[in-house]
Amino acid sequence: MKAIVIQGSFGLGSLAEVTLPDPTPGPDQVVIRMRAASLNYRDLMMVRGQYNPRQPLPLVPFSDGVGEVVEVGPSVTRLKKGDRVCPIFTQAWQDGELDAEKLKTTLGGPLPGVLSELFVAGESGVVKVPAHLTDEEAATLPCAGVTTYNALFFSGKVSPGDTVLVQGTGGVSIFALQFARLAGARVIVTSSSDAKLERAKALGAWATINYKTTPDWDKKALELTGGVGVDHVIEVGGAGTFTRSLRATRIAGTVSVIGVLGGAAQEMSVLPILMKHLELHGIMVGSRVMFEAMNRAIEASGLRPVIDEKTFSFGEAREALTYMESGGHFGKIVLRF
Amino acid sequence: MKAIVIQGSFGLGSLAEVTLPDPTPGPDQVVIRMRAASLNYRDLMMVRGQYNPRQPLPLVPFSDGVGEVVEVGPSVTRLKKGDRVCPIFTQAWQDGELDAEKLKTTLGGPLPGVLSELFVAGESGVVKVPAHLTDEEAATLPCAGVTTYNALFFSGKVSPGDTVLVQGTGGVSIFALQFARLAGARVIVTSSSDAKLERAKALGAWATINYKTTPDWDKKALELTGGVGVDHVIEVGGAGTFTRSLRATRIAGTVSVIGVLGGAAQEMSVLPILMKHLELHGIMVGSRVMFEAMNRAIEASGLRPVIDEKTFSFGEAREALTYMESGGHFGKIVLRF
Amino acid sequence: MKAIVIQGSFGLGSLAEVTLPDPTPGPDQVVIRMRAASLNYRDLMMVRGQYNPRQPLPLVPFSDGVGEVVEVGPSVTRLKKGDRVCPIFTQAWQDGELDAEKLKTTLGGPLPGVLSELFVAGESGVVKVPAHLTDEEAATLPCAGVTTYNALFFSGKVSPGDTVLVQGTGGVSIFALQFARLAGARVIVTSSSDAKLERAKALGAWATINYKTTPDWDKKALELTGGVGVDHVIEVGGAGTFTRSLRATRIAGTVSVIGVLGGAAQEMSVLPILMKHLELHGIMVGSRVMFEAMNRAIEASGLRPVIDEKTFSFGEAREALTYMESGGHFGKIVLRF
Amino acid sequence: MKAIVIQGSFGLGSLAEVTLPDPTPGPDQVVIRMRAASLNYRDLMMVRGQYNPRQPLPLVPFSDGVGEVVEVGPSVTRLKKGDRVCPIFTQAWQDGELDAEKLKTTLGGPLPGVLSELFVAGESGVVKVPAHLTDEEAATLPCAGVTTYNALFFSGKVSPGDTVLVQGTGGVSIFALQFARLAGARVIVTSSSDAKLERAKALGAWATINYKTTPDWDKKALELTGGVGVDHVIEVGGAGTFTRSLRATRIAGTVSVIGVLGGAAQEMSVLPILMKHLELHGIMVGSRVMFEAMNRAIEASGLRPVIDEKTFSFGEAREALTYMESGGHFGKIVLRF
Repeated sequence: MKAIVIQGSFGLGSLAEVTLPDPTPGPDQVVIRMRAASLNYRDLMMVRGQYNPRQPLPLVPFSDGVGEVVEVGPSVTRLKKGDRVCPIFTQAWQDGELDAEKLKTTLGGPLPGVLSELFVAGESGVVKVPAHLTDEEAATLPCAGVTTYNALFFSGKVSPGDTVLVQGTGGVSIFALQFARLAGARVIVTSSSDAKLERAKALGAWATINYKTTPDWDKKALELTGGVGVDHVIEVGGAGTFTRSLRATRIAGTVSVIGVLGGAAQEMSVLPILMKHLELHGIMVGSRVMFEAMNRAIEASGLRPVIDEKTFSFGEAREALTYMESGGHFGKIVLRF
Repeated sequence: MKAIVIQGSFGLGSLAEVTLPDPTPGPDQVVIRMRAASLNYRDLMMVRGQYNPRQPLPLVPFSDGVGEVVEVGPSVTRLKKGDRVCPIFTQAWQDGELDAEKLKTTLGGPLPGVLSELFVAGESGVVKVPAHLTDEEAATLPCAGVTTYNALFFSGKVSPGDTVLVQGTGGVSIFALQFARLAGARVIVTSSSDAKLERAKALGAWATINYKTTPDWDKKALELTGGVGVDHVIEVGGAGTFTRSLRATRIAGTVSVIGVLGGAAQEMSVLPILMKHLELHGIMVGSRVMFEAMNRAIEASGLRPVIDEKTFSFGEAREALTYMESGGHFGKIVLRF
Repeated sequence: MKAIVIQGSFGLGSLAEVTLPDPTPGPDQVVIRMRAASLNYRDLMMVRGQYNPRQPLPLVPFSDGVGEVVEVGPSVTRLKKGDRVCPIFTQAWQDGELDAEKLKTTLGGPLPGVLSELFVAGESGVVKVPAHLTDEEAATLPCAGVTTYNALFFSGKVSPGDTVLVQGTGGVSIFALQFARLAGARVIVTSSSDAKLERAKALGAWATINYKTTPDWDKKALELTGGVGVDHVIEVGGAGTFTRSLRATRIAGTVSVIGVLGGAAQEMSVLPILMKHLELHGIMVGSRVMFEAMNRAIEASGLRPVIDEKTFSFGEAREALTYMESGGHFGKIVLRF
Repeated sequence: MKAIVIQGSFGLGSLAEVTLPDPTPGPDQVVIRMRAASLNYRDLMMVRGQYNPRQPLPLVPFSDGVGEVVEVGPSVTRLKKGDRVCPIFTQAWQDGELDAEKLKTTLGGPLPGVLSELFVAGESGVVKVPAHLTDEEAATLPCAGVTTYNALFFSGKVSPGDTVLVQGTGGVSIFALQFARLAGARVIVTSSSDAKLERAKALGAWATINYKTTPDWDKKALELTGGVGVDHVIEVGGAGTFTRSLRATRIAGTVSVIGVLGGAAQEMSVLPILMKHLELHGIMVGSRVMFEAMNRAIEASGLRPVIDEKTFSFGEAREALTYMESGGHFGKIVLRF
């Protein structure tokens, strides 16, 4: 089978197409013919060598994708040939809390990712996807979808009438807009682009803030909520957003800490966490049970993930990553195989 | 001021219009000119002497209504003349858990109810109501609305994609249909009337069951959920529903026990609670904080409570109660003052 | 290997010693040489044919035991030869919520139980036991220990200063007394025997009630708590206890529904659940994660499960069950292999 | 009555004894003759002008104290003359969540504090204290006690067998050691003084770390927990502790952010919050309901707060604050009136 790997050293220039032996399923495993993959910012950092510089190479990158089961091991009971499935991001995180052992089983590093024609996984490491989604749409679910669903409905508890602030219009943020709306919440979206904010409005945003023309977006969020602050912030990072997020949140509100963008150490104070009795939740994607709960919500509502208008082919991983770097996208960037 | 009281002895025949002295507000109280009231089954039981036979008479009945603030005490800060407000059902339940002291402060017994032209309450005992609601709609909120909101979002935690079963088409059940839909859940409604089930469909029910033609409605609910059972049952009582509710619920699901209809002792087994690892929550209306959270959800969504097509005037309390006895209503029965 | 089985038909007379082939471990399995087992009331009902009359026979009964790992499959990573382990009651319940699939994997029916010299299980189906416990003590953990721990600390949330009422002095009840004490709670114990109540006192009970001399034990519990009621009842069933348990619980308190004793349908009212805003939790043992959390608590505290003074040998299963029927025991009944 | 006030400008030199008019209780108020007060680091910052430079002066400082009810307003029902009570820190925070209105009612700024012979408060703003405590001990409860209780049992959920790390041996930290022990947890204490660590051991610490001789105390905490990390950190701040606290916490563990010590902005990264799926809770003391729950725990266990061996008189507020600045204390610093 063909696969794309990072080989030799890190960097976008190190991506190369190689031929690997076709996988054979173990007793409780399935082989999936991949049809589409989607990009996360983590993938870009991984390829650049910023996510985990000690990751051994070569590595098949990208954690999120969808495909069709083409082979099943003899003790597989939940799946059959022809099922359309996504591998889950943290293969061993079935339910309950994350732990150190589970954390070693994430796809696209340290485990091989999905940028290959065939992918093998234990049956507990994949989930069936909602029938009404295209392959491109389904490919966006494993990280961006599950992370957001965990943040809003497992780690957090968004209820009808709550106000949720989402930063930007990347994959997680647009999912957050859609899921929060689905739960009856009002959503405030920030972006540096009025055009993107228009699209967010069309997807149901209650209010929008252009943080380029309104750099004090935290004050605007307070103003929009009658001085109270928002109930929940989906913090996807970026320089300096964290402190403003704490300010924009109401007393006793919740901040979901998601983005790897904000990785660098920064000058900041934890004092507002204490003084406002805030709750912060780090969100490292989620479990299989969360994925399945999200799928039920998507099925019940007919929700469709938002795909950027520019899509790429299997061989265009580098171009897709370069496009992500440019920040011009809205929703998820997808590769069709 | 005019008021209706239960006097002499219990019974619908004991309702009489009397003239009481106009109330004067204490320092932290407000006087409200009532404009509408709504009926709960508890009111019918109270008038009949079934709810609390030791309740001293005369008593102004009915707990739920809406009116306009016409006088404010000198230390009132949150309210002003002209505000449209509902008294809350349990006057002393501001936040947190219910306790025995708070339980003594419910309206329409032991405290005087709202079936009077003027009503006096502490400012902490009333909440402002969403502007887009008519008086009739706002009058339905204090018990039926808050009970349901508590059941689904405070005691229970309904999330998008969950399946909720609601019994019948009375006030609580229709609120449950509306609120669960608002939160992205799928709702199954039971009723003995196909006409009512049609209306439930129009309000967004995902599935309906006529329990007259399908007496084993629990089996039907299992079938509708692929054999799994529903995530949450809104149990409003009635002979024999409880056991079926336990059967219709999925393993580790939740049953909200609400209705006073099911008051009589019945032959039943608690074994399914244990064997299915179920959670049961008794719901005794809710706090002011829950009321305000519900109002935010109603405002954000523009939701409108469902009023039965037959409405009554201030003087027609007896007729309204008789209509409730007949069981012919859909949604809430309201009196316009 | 030797094993005891229920064969032919249900009944204590149907227990017979047989020789079965020695098990061989699958790739991710271990073989355990069993050293001790403990009895639960469920085992008695299972042998009598009351628990599940459709259970196919022969069946190796008894779910709870401890032994030493004597063989490990090639892909086992968490265990090694010589580890002392308990099989978990619900083999597939690793974490999170119970579901229908998991419920099919309980030991001692439908899956074979532990009353055999050797027992084979997946490595995820066993847990290591605290080093300071004897085999007899460790054998009591899988059902009685985990059920209680789940009731108090997962489904319920007992905190220091809470009052917990436990019914009787059987295995679950004595564990509840010990664990609740460990968490800083005050414990009220009921029994029909003053001698047993004395022993409960010695184990740290704050108050005791002899329900034979004080049949209105619910009133006594209210009195002991200044009229408020207890925070948490561990309801292990028996005719008529359920209604009294609801009465003994404070408003907004919690009742853990545990015992299979209360299986028979009884005349009762759910009204107090509603009127007192109670929470009820059915407790069907618990997950591997709960078992491990309990073990950490036992290790940190040095707690030792209470074993009845009368113990039995491998071949005395019938005598042990007959002893349980008599109700004379205090704590857990154990068989030493 | 005599009172100590900060007057003119901020600074320890600005504390002065003045005579103020004796307070008269409003209808629902009580007057308390204060007997003891305790110091919190917040008081030191307030006097220095670091806590809130815009706080109007003069201000009676100090939030925590105990006294005897000497006068009761006519509508007071829960209290009577002679009751020994503590004012609660956030007068309006009765139950549920903190909000902006409640936050304006903290004692010792913006509201007058307890460093006066008489103190007046609404009856809902005081709680009775456990009978077995001395006045000095009871005076320590309102901030240090309630903050810790909230962190461990309301915002957090410490269970038997959990490992809790507490930083230093100040008031909050010693309460955390005592309460966590009471709940069956293992406690690791850090300090720069071996003598203090000895005393922590005597109070039940499971392990101790001298962070002067072991600056990498986070690594030591990981080592003590078999590489896993602690379940819960009580983070009381100080330069550079926050990052180490995140490192010392297990995946999916909880950090309670408490101390005002850590107020200054610092170079830090939020990445570990995300990567380890951590939960952070800012703890701004707590509600009256939490105070009462803590009191039940203290009563049930007979726990006694730890008072530093050096105590002060009413007129020695400055000396007491200077002593706190020196950091030599162990447990709480108290003033006897």
